[in-house]
Amino acid sequence: MEQLGHKKWGFQGNQELNASSISVRGVLNQLMANRNKDDQRSTIPLGRADPTMFPSYRTTSSAADAVADAVQSFQFNCYPPTVGVADARRAVAEHISKDLPYQLSADDVYLTVGCTQAIEIVVSVLARPGANILLPRPGYPQYEARVRCSNLEARHFDLMPEKGWEVDLDSVEALVDENTVAMVIINPSNPCGNVFTYQHLKKIAETARKLGIFVISDEVYGHLAFGSNPFVPMGVFGSIVPVLTLGSLSKRWIVPGWRLGWIVTTDPNGIFQESGFVESLRSYLDITSDPPTVIQGALTQILEKTKEDFYSKILNIMREDANLLYEGIKEIPCLTCPHKPEGSMVVMVKLNLSLLEGVTDDVDFCMKLAKEESVIILPGITVGLKNWLRITFAIEHSSLEDALGRIKAFYYRHAKNK
Amino acid sequence: MEQLGHKKWGFQGNQELNASSISVRGVLNQLMANRNKDDQRSTIPLGRADPTMFPSYRTTSSAADAVADAVQSFQFNCYPPTVGVADARRAVAEHISKDLPYQLSADDVYLTVGCTQAIEIVVSVLARPGANILLPRPGYPQYEARVRCSNLEARHFDLMPEKGWEVDLDSVEALVDENTVAMVIINPSNPCGNVFTYQHLKKIAETARKLGIFVISDEVYGHLAFGSNPFVPMGVFGSIVPVLTLGSLSKRWIVPGWRLGWIVTTDPNGIFQESGFVESLRSYLDITSDPPTVIQGALTQILEKTKEDFYSKILNIMREDANLLYEGIKEIPCLTCPHKPEGSMVVMVKLNLSLLEGVTDDVDFCMKLAKEESVIILPGITVGLKNWLRITFAIEHSSLEDALGRIKAFYYRHAKNK
Repeated sequence: MEQLGHKKWGFQGNQELNASSISVRGVLNQLMANRNKDDQRSTIPLGRADPTMFPSYRTTSSAADAVADAVQSFQFNCYPPTVGVADARRAVAEHISKDLPYQLSADDVYLTVGCTQAIEIVVSVLARPGANILLPRPGYPQYEARVRCSNLEARHFDLMPEKGWEVDLDSVEALVDENTVAMVIINPSNPCGNVFTYQHLKKIAETARKLGIFVISDEVYGHLAFGSNPFVPMGVFGSIVPVLTLGSLSKRWIVPGWRLGWIVTTDPNGIFQESGFVESLRSYLDITSDPPTVIQGALTQILEKTKEDFYSKILNIMREDANLLYEGIKEIPCLTCPHKPEGSMVVMVKLNLSLLEGVTDDVDFCMKLAKEESVIILPGITVGLKNWLRITFAIEHSSLEDALGRIKAFYYRHAKNK
Repeated sequence: MEQLGHKKWGFQGNQELNASSISVRGVLNQLMANRNKDDQRSTIPLGRADPTMFPSYRTTSSAADAVADAVQSFQFNCYPPTVGVADARRAVAEHISKDLPYQLSADDVYLTVGCTQAIEIVVSVLARPGANILLPRPGYPQYEARVRCSNLEARHFDLMPEKGWEVDLDSVEALVDENTVAMVIINPSNPCGNVFTYQHLKKIAETARKLGIFVISDEVYGHLAFGSNPFVPMGVFGSIVPVLTLGSLSKRWIVPGWRLGWIVTTDPNGIFQESGFVESLRSYLDITSDPPTVIQGALTQILEKTKEDFYSKILNIMREDANLLYEGIKEIPCLTCPHKPEGSMVVMVKLNLSLLEGVTDDVDFCMKLAKEESVIILPGITVGLKNWLRITFAIEHSSLEDALGRIKAFYYRHAKNK
């Protein structure tokens, strides 16, 4: 019998896909694989914003009960409507409207498989040959990955570390042409850890309005603000510019594994309707996988019954962890944190390679750190800034202390002799 | 202030998406909207294979308990690995290997958001500019929709009603060229309701091998066979040709709303590995939404603990419902069912328009039936055959009787005077 392996098959690899695989998850998998298997210490995961394994960050029991109740009711085993279960959409509309100067309806809400799918859907619907979209640098690589898979070109505007990571609005204006469809902001910021002020958000809205582009406001970390700037949803400026708000249960409720997110049209003037965006969105949802009906069935109870205590407990823990990281970084000469984290679960830290011997760049730093210290940190290149690091502070306090100690030891082992 | 609605925005509609919106869900939504709101009778849904609302088709309590347990354990709130939770993958490998002449490993299994996402993923990974894929006609429109969104051309081979809906292998050979990457079969068949024999599947495998194309075997209705042909998984012939098996909890366990599916490489010769398919698949999974960890966490228990009683009870109910539909169709002169359903939850029925007055085609038939009788049936054009109908028999027995009575009344009201 002919050897099957040497037969010629119609499929000969998808080079484009293999080449475009710089994803947070891909890089983290490589770092994990680079650990020293003989290290008896536990691995400390500062690479990904997923603190679910730590007791301090356990979700509230009422949320788990809501899902268990939905399953046991046998009422949510059916396919969901393509836009989401009506009651769940209404609950999200109510929840988000609390912070807006106008009232959303259930029809403004589309439920998704986490914020990851919300990004995929929004990018796919906006795409057309020749069009472009503005993304922040540093940013969240899921946008880059999805833009590459679509008929869209990515153009990057800068976030300015010396100005608390505010958007460089001049660079936004310089990038726009008549084929620009939208700009993306992430607030509270992944990867920078800042929270935009009301005034800055208003300026972004006015700039986008002037340029004739939609705003996609990724608020997956919405309400996770524990510094001096309160969280202001971009939808507040929905009458200035049409805003697509992306959100999720993942971060505030600390259940990324439940995979429930949403796209919300915060647009009191109905531009999304008028421009045909809503029609295209609904068409795309018709052919897209849905979030499980059983989780959607729990959403009303989760949004309405979660106690303030839970939210404030988590914010207090995060504030302490962010402080610990910020102060700890000061003790490690090769690292600088230009802006104290005040939101999200991550922060950007600058790497000074001139103080290190035999470390070539951020990827090399992270690979060696994984190998020698079993500490996982995301290289900045993954989020668009070479020779920076993205570090997660949302882990158990004692583990974060341990991690800082290991990074410090790593530094002194690799420090350049003066 | 300038009127926002009259401003020029960068987004001006996604015509391609709007034009491509012939989806099962899109058509069903239109039919539902066409009902007469004054009809006091309940709507009978024969358009979609989702019997979850009917007491006879309730899932087993042990499956619901498994999900509730997973949620209450707080062990599955984290992001899942991109390929799926290890234990869950192992459980699927075990489950599928029972029917194969070789043993799968956990590494052969990739968990997805239902079979819908499995289709999206497989199509996206196989796509490259200039490539083509062979799809069955009639078929499942999700394949067409996803092919249109990708760098792939769809080519259709025929299923032959007069031969029990077997694949026309001559038409397959005529369609293939050096850019053909794969062919899709759906067994048990949606939309035809037949189950392929061992001999026919073997012929398909040998043909695909000769032509150098992979086989995608959509077995979302796997094991739902209640006629004379037993269900044979295509993976049985994995040593003849590499097979991608797609499956899900949705149909056999009657929980489409749980959205848990899988892609399995049933390929003992490792061609998927060698050709780079596995690498591309893993890269694509890195940027794709995952099925909820909480549902994955329940999968082992669901696959191992579901009792034979449950499976056989459901098959008995389906066999009776399929008989009822088949016999009932014989009483309606304008309808012919060329092949008695013996698997899946749906069957194709031919519409004889020459016996009807003022009904122009299958879409018109379904729209009028929805309006006059509140019975929802999918027009055949949606699945590739004009002037046929796809009818679901998996509903409560009494509702199916009711539906047949209404369709018969509809026929006599619209019958051409001889």
